[in-house]
Amino acid sequence: MSDVLSFNNPVFSQFAFYSGVVLCKTLIMGPATSFFRMKNETFSNEEDCKLSKDKSLKPKFNDATVERIRRCHQNDLENNIPFLLIGLLYVASEPYENVALYLFRTFAAARLLHTVAYLTPLPQPTRALCFMVGVGVNGLMLFRAFTQAQY
Amino acid sequence: MSDVLSFNNPVFSQFAFYSGVVLCKTLIMGPATSFFRMKNETFSNEEDCKLSKDKSLKPKFNDATVERIRRCHQNDLENNIPFLLIGLLYVASEPYENVALYLFRTFAAARLLHTVAYLTPLPQPTRALCFMVGVGVNGLMLFRAFTQAQY
Amino acid sequence: MSDVLSFNNPVFSQFAFYSGVVLCKTLIMGPATSFFRMKNETFSNEEDCKLSKDKSLKPKFNDATVERIRRCHQNDLENNIPFLLIGLLYVASEPYENVALYLFRTFAAARLLHTVAYLTPLPQPTRALCFMVGVGVNGLMLFRAFTQAQY
Repeated sequence: MSDVLSFNNPVFSQFAFYSGVVLCKTLIMGPATSFFRMKNETFSNEEDCKLSKDKSLKPKFNDATVERIRRCHQNDLENNIPFLLIGLLYVASEPYENVALYLFRTFAAARLLHTVAYLTPLPQPTRALCFMVGVGVNGLMLFRAFTQAQY
Repeated sequence: MSDVLSFNNPVFSQFAFYSGVVLCKTLIMGPATSFFRMKNETFSNEEDCKLSKDKSLKPKFNDATVERIRRCHQNDLENNIPFLLIGLLYVASEPYENVALYLFRTFAAARLLHTVAYLTPLPQPTRALCFMVGVGVNGLMLFRAFTQAQY
Repeated sequence: MSDVLSFNNPVFSQFAFYSGVVLCKTLIMGPATSFFRMKNETFSNEEDCKLSKDKSLKPKFNDATVERIRRCHQNDLENNIPFLLIGLLYVASEPYENVALYLFRTFAAARLLHTVAYLTPLPQPTRALCFMVGVGVNGLMLFRAFTQAQY
C-alpha cells in the first residue's frame, strides 16, 4: 500500500518512462524553435536580431515554420503537462497495472504521432484524431482519480 | 508520517478532487477551441482548411471567439498547472486539514468563476478579482512549502 | 527507501525550495503582465478596455513591453513547469544528494538570470545561454529518471 509514488511501484516506474518520453519530446521543441529562428532569421526581440549578419533585421512574428513549431509546442504544453499531473494522481489511485500500461502507451504513441502529423504535415484528420486520443486518455485517468478522491 | 502523497492521506485525497476539477476544466478548453474553430471556420494550418467545404479558405488568426477561448486556456495553463505543482509540495508539507481544504475550495471556485467571467464575458473587475484570488492561494501554499524546505 | 517524496527526504526538501523559487518567479509574471497592461493601457478584451478612462480604447496586441513579458512568461511555462515534473521523477529516482543540489541550484540560477536577460534586455547570447543551461539540466535529470524506469 505504501510507496505508490516511488520506483518500487511498477506502475510508477512505467509512468515515469512514458512521461519521460512525452516530456523529452516537449523539451526538444524549445531548441527546435531556436534552431529555425536562426535558420530563417525570424526573431521576436531586437537584441536577438543583432546576432544576425544582416544589421537591418527587424523582429518578425509570421514565419510559417517557426509558428507551426510553436503551435505544436503549445499543444504539447496543453496536453502533455496535464498528462503528467493527472498521471501522478492516477498512479496514486493504484490502478490495475495492465490498464495503466495500456493507457500510458496509447497516450505516448498518440502524442508522438500528433507531432509527426503536425510537422510533416500529414493530411487531416490525422492530427485531430491523435489530439482526441490524448484528451481521451487524460479524461479516463482523471475519472479514475475522481472515484478515489474526497471532497 | 508516511504516505503523505497517497489517497490514504485525506489532504491528498481532497487535493486530488479539487485538482481534478481545475484540470478537467482546463482540458475541456482544448476541444472547445477545436469546436469553435470548426464552427467559425478559423484554422491555423493549411491542412486544416482543407477540412472545410470552402476550398478557398485561408488560415486566419483573429476570430474573436476562438482567441478569447485561447486566452482563457492560456490563463488556465499559467495558473492551474502551478496550482497542481505547488499543491503537491504543499500537501507534502502536511498542512492543517481544514486550512488546506479551505484553500483548495477557494482556488477551484475562483478559477471556475474566472472562466465564466472570461467567456460570458462579465464586466470587469470580476475576472481580475478571480485571477488575483487564484494567485493569492498559490502564493500562500508556496509560502507554506518554503517554510518546510531546505536550501 | 520509503518516503522519497516527502520533506523527510533532504533531496525532496531541497527540490521543494528551488522549485518554489522558480515557481514564485513564474507566478509573478502574471500580475506583472496585468500591471503593464494597465500602465500602458493595452488590453486584450473589450470589457477590460472599459476599466480605462479613455472610453474610445480598443483591444490591442502589440505593446512591446507587455509582449516581452508574455514571451518571458511563456518561456517559463515551457521550461520551469517541465523542471518541476522531471524533478519529481528525478527525486523519486533517489539521486546522489550533492549532484541533485548542484543541478537544482544551476537550474534556478540560470532561469533567474534568463528573466533578467529577457526583461533588461541584456545583449545576446546571455539569454540563449541561460536557456540552454536550463534545457541541459532538464535533460540530465530526465536521463537519470529514464535509467530507473521500466517500459
